[in-house]
Amino acid sequence: MDPNAVSKAFVDHYYSTFDTNRPGLANLYQEASMLTFEGQQFQGAQNIAAKLASLPFQQCQHSITTVDCQPSGPAGGMLVFVSGNLQLAGEQHALKFSQLFHLIPTPQGSFYVQNDIFRLNYA
Amino acid sequence: MDPNAVSKAFVDHYYSTFDTNRPGLANLYQEASMLTFEGQQFQGAQNIAAKLASLPFQQCQHSITTVDCQPSGPAGGMLVFVSGNLQLAGEQHALKFSQLFHLIPTPQGSFYVQNDIFRLNYA
Repeated sequence: MDPNAVSKAFVDHYYSTFDTNRPGLANLYQEASMLTFEGQQFQGAQNIAAKLASLPFQQCQHSITTVDCQPSGPAGGMLVFVSGNLQLAGEQHALKFSQLFHLIPTPQGSFYVQNDIFRLNYA
Repeated sequence: MDPNAVSKAFVDHYYSTFDTNRPGLANLYQEASMLTFEGQQFQGAQNIAAKLASLPFQQCQHSITTVDCQPSGPAGGMLVFVSGNLQLAGEQHALKFSQLFHLIPTPQGSFYVQNDIFRLNYA
């Protein structure tokens, strides 16, 4: 398993799901998962999905600038650090963002998001 | 132990050491520590400190905009996600940056940096 390939595949899947089927993101989280979104904290797949669904824009497109990954420890977790641009429909300028995912392997050979921290980088 | 207080104290210590005594940063890493600096990977306290010492500026000042933290798992680790500005001596404009630290508790009751990912957010 190539960590760079796994993280790239995860990132592609995450943001294309966000941009086309936001409720589908709930499947990537579990009950212990945590999201800090612009300083607001949420726990559990349902609360996290509700927060993402409630964001005050319907259409958006993420484009990724950088993806860095490192193993988080001996348990097989992976830290994925993303920077990119978020284009909201009808807005002239894209917003820059940074986001961290801590991915944990599942018994099924996949990963779920244990930690998610999102910040806009106001230019 | 309040995670927010710990992460704030770590962040204050890290960046004041960076700005006033960069070689002292080596003490915050161990042999298994990893740094990804603008996509370049380094492992081990000595290699990481050498990279930080070799950055092409001598004087700088970090100012912190946001600090978010989450526990990374049951082992007591902590994810600390920082955004801020990096002012280089003699430069007119500060650089925006984002940085992730994964802190692991030591037997002495302190923390070391297991993972460090640094990115400039080009405006």
